[in-house]
This record gives sequence, structure tokens and C-alpha cells, in this order.
Amino acid sequence: MPPAEHAARLHRLLAELRRRRLDGAVITHPVARFYYTGVASSAGALWVDVREGPLFAVDFRYLFMARAALPFMPCALQKAGEAAVRSPWLRRARRWRRCGYEGREPASALRRRQEQLPGVTEWEDIDPLILAQRAVKSPREQRALRRAIAANDALLAALLPQLRAGLSEWEIRNLIRREADQFGQGEAFDTIACAGANAAECHHVPGDDVLGPGQPLLLDFGVKLDHYCADMTRCISPERPGARYRNLFRVVLEANRRAVAAIRPGMTGREVDDVARSHIVRAGYGAAFGHGLGHGLGLEVHEAPSFSPRSEEVIRPGMVVTVEPGIYLSGKVGIRIEDVVLITRGGCEVLTRSPHELMLPEP
Amino acid sequence: MPPAEHAARLHRLLAELRRRRLDGAVITHPVARFYYTGVASSAGALWVDVREGPLFAVDFRYLFMARAALPFMPCALQKAGEAAVRSPWLRRARRWRRCGYEGREPASALRRRQEQLPGVTEWEDIDPLILAQRAVKSPREQRALRRAIAANDALLAALLPQLRAGLSEWEIRNLIRREADQFGQGEAFDTIACAGANAAECHHVPGDDVLGPGQPLLLDFGVKLDHYCADMTRCISPERPGARYRNLFRVVLEANRRAVAAIRPGMTGREVDDVARSHIVRAGYGAAFGHGLGHGLGLEVHEAPSFSPRSEEVIRPGMVVTVEPGIYLSGKVGIRIEDVVLITRGGCEVLTRSPHELMLPEP
Repeated sequence: MPPAEHAARLHRLLAELRRRRLDGAVITHPVARFYYTGVASSAGALWVDVREGPLFAVDFRYLFMARAALPFMPCALQKAGEAAVRSPWLRRARRWRRCGYEGREPASALRRRQEQLPGVTEWEDIDPLILAQRAVKSPREQRALRRAIAANDALLAALLPQLRAGLSEWEIRNLIRREADQFGQGEAFDTIACAGANAAECHHVPGDDVLGPGQPLLLDFGVKLDHYCADMTRCISPERPGARYRNLFRVVLEANRRAVAAIRPGMTGREVDDVARSHIVRAGYGAAFGHGLGHGLGLEVHEAPSFSPRSEEVIRPGMVVTVEPGIYLSGKVGIRIEDVVLITRGGCEVLTRSPHELMLPEP
Repeated sequence: MPPAEHAARLHRLLAELRRRRLDGAVITHPVARFYYTGVASSAGALWVDVREGPLFAVDFRYLFMARAALPFMPCALQKAGEAAVRSPWLRRARRWRRCGYEGREPASALRRRQEQLPGVTEWEDIDPLILAQRAVKSPREQRALRRAIAANDALLAALLPQLRAGLSEWEIRNLIRREADQFGQGEAFDTIACAGANAAECHHVPGDDVLGPGQPLLLDFGVKLDHYCADMTRCISPERPGARYRNLFRVVLEANRRAVAAIRPGMTGREVDDVARSHIVRAGYGAAFGHGLGHGLGLEVHEAPSFSPRSEEVIRPGMVVTVEPGIYLSGKVGIRIEDVVLITRGGCEVLTRSPHELMLPEP
């Protein structure tokens, strides 16, 4: 991403800090640091002073990279021990009274900062603010996510001819990992592969169980491409699925389609969830849909917003969210159909292009 | 691991909390939680009251698993919201004055706990205590680490015949990942594969660079087996390495051997580091060895103790540590030779069995 992208992100962050009447904030979480700087450093701190602007303090390994990537703001050498205490940005921050911190950063880091900045009287968790900003993707981020999701579709197309009854879940998971290394930079999360009734466990860990003839296969996987995550779930039916399986599949697919058709900016996450959930409830499987309908997707595989019965987050254009209704009958069957959608001004666009109805190739 | 293992670990934790005159502690970090309970849950909190003993609060997904694994202590259903506030363990903890917290847990979790337990006047970071306990491996943990390291040796033996000039770093990294899925449960960390001069970058990210004929290859990789991490670095020389390469290789190997021969319980991490470092300094490459000599290995790939110029940690029998001296000449060459050792009463045992001198197979 070009420097202008990160300059714009920091500009919005500053406006938000001002709106909350914070004097400044320190950002050290690796994902947030990468989001605002584009520098994939393993350490470093972004000191944001609402009057003076941002400064990126980073060690010598990343300093030159940071200066090249961030020509619009100062990048300074982060020192350790006594030298750190004398750094100009820390001295400047000593004037702060209201300071933002990240709720995700380690507790020990917050305690150390509280000692460094004894003048701060109010510490405010700015993670909700950062996550809300990250939830709305810029046009460049949308393009990056489209590429990651297209790569995931291509991965599935390359995978399908390799699948057959007789493979273990672990072997199938290994095939997907292998393809994820080819189509992207590996997996965005640990692949889930469930043979037959194992799909009834939402987060089944793939094991030695072998996909038997006539058994359906549930796959939940996502490639990571240029830092952005894809995510998709497909249920691959055997050649002749039973009547119950076909019926449940139809209920879940219809729940997915209804949610996609209903999504409009301005709805809350709860309202979107309810569209799919009420369809599943009416079909008599409400208790068998034990998780939320979807989650935001971006630099992380789970981020804001959330489609769930408790989510009051308001959907806005530019958000990228999964839609993944499911039905799980313990010990019997599990079905989940997950697509990724981009919220648009008029509704949403489904970014996932893989077909919903897939069959195991003939032996 | 059997329940007795976790009972013993908790017993030692309690003794240590008492020694520090803490009234209790709450442990939520996934690795520490797993270390003390053996339950690989994605949530849950271990409430340790020095008078009443430990209690594991975990949600319904893990409750039955936890009760089966931990027959010697109460496991309770963790509830959310108002019900959580009324839980007996929280009411009991309200009597605490001195409370331990984990420095690694999220800052927001500490802030929430500080609100829940307003009677606590002193919060002490117990991460150093937990890491010190985890550093000394029990006989069962030593066996688990031996198995992981033997699997890593087997991985290398299976990999060697697949290596050849013409492969890219990325392809080599993918081969290792594939083998790590066969020999264990995947990688303990992202594999490092460096062709030729790329090895001069200590943490080079494998890319499209192709291993040229006559170029050496540096590989740093570790399989994860039953939760325990292996770690090994080998430099694989071309058929006819140059005189400079052979000379540097000899210096690094001798530094490795001297450290292994010198290790005794009672030494500090700094003293062990110094044995290898002073050899490299005498050979004229002190400035080219820019990292510490080694790190502890266990459930995490980097844990206590540390062999480094600043480490005052005292080496004790049962610790498992890497020994990995290196020489890096920017843009030219990089060599690192890493083995894992188990500290014994009389010195140490090298657990890594792979040969140090390896050559690329003939084309």
C-alpha cells in the first residue's frame, strides 16, 4: 500500500482521538501497528500526540524500512533502558492527562506505561475505536480482500479433484495447507476438515478419521494473501446424499441466501443475524445453530463487525463480513455454508465465487 | 499427561505464591492455563487461592473434559455477566489483598479484574514465577521434548534427499511444512530457509530466491509434537564449499561444541553465552554474532531461560535450552548451528542427533 493509505488512516485515528478528547495514545499491538504504518515489524510503538501528530519509534532493524514507507511522519530510533526514558516523545507524552491504551496489549506493558506517564489521570481503552476504523475497508483494502478471496476460490477448485473417500481428515487438511502455500502465504487460520458426523462439532480438530464412502465432508479454510485473510466453508456431499442431509443443506443454503438478500447498510449485526436465524428456527433447527451468523474479515480472520444475536454494531458500506449459517446435530450431521460479502451502498456483494453445491469426485 | 503431573505443578505454584505472600492469583494465558491443567481450552480462568487451593472456571464446552482431567480440584462452570459477579470464587477472591496477575494477559483483562477486586491493594506480575517454573521440565516433559526433537531429526533425514539446487526458498519451506505435518502436528514456528547470502539475515523470510548451484542453504525449523516444540538450525553446504565458508563453519561449530562441553548447573545464562561468544570474538567475528546463544524450549518455542550476554538466570537440571551460535556477514554469508540440550546434574545432554556437517545431495 502506498504512503497515502497509511497517512489517511492515521489522519482518521487522530480525528477520532480528538473527538474523544484524548491527549494522545500509544499503539503497539502488531496488527494495529501494521495497519497504521504498513511496516511488518516485530516491535515498535506508534506515539500519537493529538497536537503534534504521530511518531513511529522502532529499533534499528526496521528504521530505514519505516522511513522509506512513512515519508509523511517522523520515524525515530527506539532505544532501551535509560535512553528510552529521555526520548523526546516520552517527554512530550508526560504532558498528557487523558491517554489511550490498547486493551489487547499485555497488562505488563500498560503497567510500565502507567509508571512512565504518571501525569495521566485517565486511561481509555481505544481498541473499540481502532477495530471500528479497521472494520470499514478502504478501496485498496477491498481490492486486497478480493484477491485473497479469489485465491481461496482457486484453491478449492484445485483441491476438489484431489479429494476422495479413503483420505483421513488430517490428509485432507494437509492438502489444503499445501495449496494455501501455493495460492497465498499459507493459511489464515488452522483448516477445519470434518468427515461425516464430525461436522457436528463446530471447531472439530482434524484427526485420523477417514472419510468413508457415502460420507459428506465439511471444509472451513482460508488462504492469507498479502496480509489479508480469506475464509470459506463448504460442505461436499457424497454422490448420493440421504434425504435428511439434502433437506438440512437446503435450509442452511436458504438461510445464507436470505441474509445476503436482506443486508443493507444501517442494519445492526443482530438484525442481519436474525434474518438467517429465524429461517432456521422456522425449519425447526433453532437450537442447532449455536453460533453467530458471521464476523468481519481483514488483516485478522475475526474482526469487527459481528453478525450475532447480541451485536448492536451498525453495518456500513466497505465492511467485509462472513455469512455462515449452520445446523449441527450432535453425533449425526453438521452443515455450514460460509461466504464473504462486501457491504455496498445498496446492499452487499458476495465476494466468494465457489459454487455452494459440491460433490465428491467419482472414484 | 496424567492428573498427577498437573496436581504437582499446581502444588509448586501454590508454594511459590505463599513464599511471595500473595493471597491468590488468576491465570488465563492459554499456555499457562494448559501447563497447569492440561486442558487445551480456548477460554477459562484458573483461580488460585493460597488458602483454599485452585479452582478451574471454564465454559460448558470444556467443563466435562476438565472434570475428567482434573479429578483433584474443583472445576466450575464459568458464566458471563451478572452470574459471573456472583460466582463463589470471585466472592472468595474479594478477600484478597495481594494478588498475582499475568503480565502477558491483555491489559483490558487486568483492568476488568482490578474493578472486580477493589480490595486488592497490590498487584504483582507473576509471569516471571510461572516462566521460571516452566523452565525446569519434569521427567514426563523431558520425554515429550525428546520425542519432538527426535521427530525433527527424522524430518531432516526425510527432507535431505528432496533438496537440490534449483528449488526456491519458498519451495523448500513448503517441503519442510509438509514433512512437519507428517512427523508432528505442523511447525512450532515459521520455517526459515535461506539460499546463499540470504543466510546473513538472521530472520530472513523465505521468498522466491532460488538456491543456486554451489550455494549453501541455511534451514531453521522445528516440528510441534503433542504440544512440545523442537528447534534446529543446520547449514547445508554445497558439494565444494569455498575456503571462507569452511573456515567460518568451523568457528561456529567449535563455538557450539565449547558451549555444550562447558555447560554446568549453577552457571548463569551469561556465562554459558560467553563460552561460545569468546571463541567467536577470538576468531575475529564478535561483531558478526548479533544474537544470544540460546533460549529455553518447551510448550513455547521461546521460553526461559535465556543464554545471552544479559541473562543472570541460573541454569538448573531439567532445563531444555538451544545452543545456537552464528556468524553473519551482511550480503555474503550466514552460518548458524543450533542444537537442543537438556541440562543434567553433571553438565548437559545433546538431544539433537542430526549430523552437523551436511551436504546437498548430488544432482
